[in-house]
Amino acid sequence: MSVAEVSLESTIQQLAQQAHAASLSLATLPRATKDAVLLTLAKLIEEREDSLREANAKDLEAGAANGLSKPLLDRLELTPKRIAGMAQGVREVAELPDPVGREMESHQHPQGFTIKKVSVPIGVIGIIYESRPNVTIDCAALCLKSGNATILRGGKEAFYSNNALAELIHEALQQHGVTPHAVQIVPTTDRAALNILLKLDDYIHCIIPRGGEALIRFTAENARMPVIKHYKGVCNVYVDAAADAEMATRIVVNAKCQRPSVCNAAENLILHRKTLDTGWLQIARALTDAGVELRCDEASGQALEKAGILYTPVNPELDYHEEYLDLILAVKTVDSADEAVAFVNTYGSSHSDAIVTGDVATAQRFLEGVDSATCYWNVSTRFTDGYEFGLGAEIGISTDKLHARGPMGLNELTTYKYQIVGEGQIRE
Amino acid sequence: MSVAEVSLESTIQQLAQQAHAASLSLATLPRATKDAVLLTLAKLIEEREDSLREANAKDLEAGAANGLSKPLLDRLELTPKRIAGMAQGVREVAELPDPVGREMESHQHPQGFTIKKVSVPIGVIGIIYESRPNVTIDCAALCLKSGNATILRGGKEAFYSNNALAELIHEALQQHGVTPHAVQIVPTTDRAALNILLKLDDYIHCIIPRGGEALIRFTAENARMPVIKHYKGVCNVYVDAAADAEMATRIVVNAKCQRPSVCNAAENLILHRKTLDTGWLQIARALTDAGVELRCDEASGQALEKAGILYTPVNPELDYHEEYLDLILAVKTVDSADEAVAFVNTYGSSHSDAIVTGDVATAQRFLEGVDSATCYWNVSTRFTDGYEFGLGAEIGISTDKLHARGPMGLNELTTYKYQIVGEGQIRE
Repeated sequence: MSVAEVSLESTIQQLAQQAHAASLSLATLPRATKDAVLLTLAKLIEEREDSLREANAKDLEAGAANGLSKPLLDRLELTPKRIAGMAQGVREVAELPDPVGREMESHQHPQGFTIKKVSVPIGVIGIIYESRPNVTIDCAALCLKSGNATILRGGKEAFYSNNALAELIHEALQQHGVTPHAVQIVPTTDRAALNILLKLDDYIHCIIPRGGEALIRFTAENARMPVIKHYKGVCNVYVDAAADAEMATRIVVNAKCQRPSVCNAAENLILHRKTLDTGWLQIARALTDAGVELRCDEASGQALEKAGILYTPVNPELDYHEEYLDLILAVKTVDSADEAVAFVNTYGSSHSDAIVTGDVATAQRFLEGVDSATCYWNVSTRFTDGYEFGLGAEIGISTDKLHARGPMGLNELTTYKYQIVGEGQIRE
Repeated sequence: MSVAEVSLESTIQQLAQQAHAASLSLATLPRATKDAVLLTLAKLIEEREDSLREANAKDLEAGAANGLSKPLLDRLELTPKRIAGMAQGVREVAELPDPVGREMESHQHPQGFTIKKVSVPIGVIGIIYESRPNVTIDCAALCLKSGNATILRGGKEAFYSNNALAELIHEALQQHGVTPHAVQIVPTTDRAALNILLKLDDYIHCIIPRGGEALIRFTAENARMPVIKHYKGVCNVYVDAAADAEMATRIVVNAKCQRPSVCNAAENLILHRKTLDTGWLQIARALTDAGVELRCDEASGQALEKAGILYTPVNPELDYHEEYLDLILAVKTVDSADEAVAFVNTYGSSHSDAIVTGDVATAQRFLEGVDSATCYWNVSTRFTDGYEFGLGAEIGISTDKLHARGPMGLNELTTYKYQIVGEGQIRE
């Protein structure tokens, strides 16, 4: 290794060790201190709007010079509205209940002592993310509230903005006597730093990657510690033979069109063959009126052709796996709810899937048989979201199976320990 | 790759795919069917004692020929008592409540629909273990009861025994119309098969390694899917200045001596300096009477020297990290409970740690500050065990932070999904 490589490795290792040491004291930090830090941070974000915009301007300028696309530059920009939104978000996190110290279960041992399962912070959480600088504040606030130390590794496009935000976080921490190692930013945009970070499983307990599928795959494949993630959202809506056509139309249009660029938008529509001649035409007209391109299998396409509705033939192995994030919908015809369930389990991404039906038994088969984080009956997939689920806030959505599934709020940033209190009992 | 390698890879991949397909149907298997399979299995284990012992004799013979040590041969043997114990264990699992389908939380959305968090099986669980063949039955029973498909990879020493047990499992599954792919054994002892298995994260959702530290490290470093594990049990007992000497003696002797070969036995004793002249001598005499070798730091050693009690000087960086699994105890002197907490967090393995004290505030600092799965106040560490914790059975103990910590029972073999039931609600 070169001198520079050795030095980078020791810098990142020291940062992780400091985070680990900080996590041990954060675990017992009283709620009042955590909330005071958050309220100070919210005030600082508002007061320092000008310097935040100055730092952000440097990133925007560099981005423009490096040919960053218009949508990426837009995501990068810290507008006054976004800055106010960050401060407001931090205040809302302060108001949420403390997720640490909840008694989750309790067991009375026959020898007369009590075994309590109590929620505790996870420890050190690494967040790997891309250009939006508000993620810096959102994640720092949620991790601090849940008593975790945080290592933030944002995109190089937002380097100045993220550092300016980190300065405010450190100022808020120090005003209340909390170690600045509670929230640290990786001090370089060197990709090698990320590789080093992902090997430090002695100090970092969990990584949450937020961004495109390539970033998430890189993180999952290289991390030695657990990674909580979702690669993509290929959500399905199944319109059953026993569906109400009005309701099905409303749900399918909402799931596809209300905000096509997000992970809980529908990408595949599954139709029971019995819906092809009536309900399907109503749904298809509403979708094409909303500007949706329909990519149909043979049966659903023929039905449209007879009715004079435009469509494109589907390429099953490409389209059914695809997260369009756009006004495109792939359509599949099935002969039974079981076939629909099998389709969802094959092509979906275990994120959010819905059935529209009036039949209770069929709905139950779907809710139980679909192996996804969130399964809907007669409700749009668009509700998969921490706020909508009553979690108060969201650090991400998981399609993993262990620890956290679906929207992740403060409780999902905690784990538990057992505390056992007795009077000298020994095992016989 | 050679033809043999290609063939091994496709064999293992097919096995994992079959397990994944089986897991989707196991997820909705009614409790009655799962319990019926288990009761049939218990009966078959008893009825086929002779053929089990025949298969086991082949393993014992091969083991002896290959120079397997006496303790390993002992662990490998299926005695009539152990066979009866396996059958009894399976019956006990059948009696436990079904961990699947528990409503864990429920949230009423303002738009009038309900979001339920419901327990579901994890999916496919891989168990990697060493010579004891009863693990085959224990793990298969617990995974089946929790609705998971299982891939079992036992040690090559127990190959014939494990296959004989797997035959009984398949017979029991088939008698009740359950696919034999619910429980599969890796059909080769080739180490390459393990490497292939650990990469199949598309089909296998979790790996639980059970065995020595080397096996567990190999698994954790090579698996692409989450691994739930504990490397070792370096458990600590801290005797505070405010400890009752009688109680401290009872707990330390129990934690060290009652069964020194298990992971919840104490390996380090931490003494508050104020205990050195009185309590420590009482504890040390009881320990040496029980045949324990004491490896002492300077202060604790000098106190023994004055009292004429034998000891060995400790080598801190070796001894305090060591899991002796034997009648050896390393001793450390501290000036405060905080120093004890820091020692536990540095040298312990986050498994089970105890404080003995009469002081509530000190106990609280220890229970909160020690970053371990189970923290005891005035109770022996020996209680860390699924049965003792009221879990009914145990598939292992985790010192990881995510998903499961401490003893893992049936509930820890489940995850959750959200089920949302509405009447056509869409997101505005």
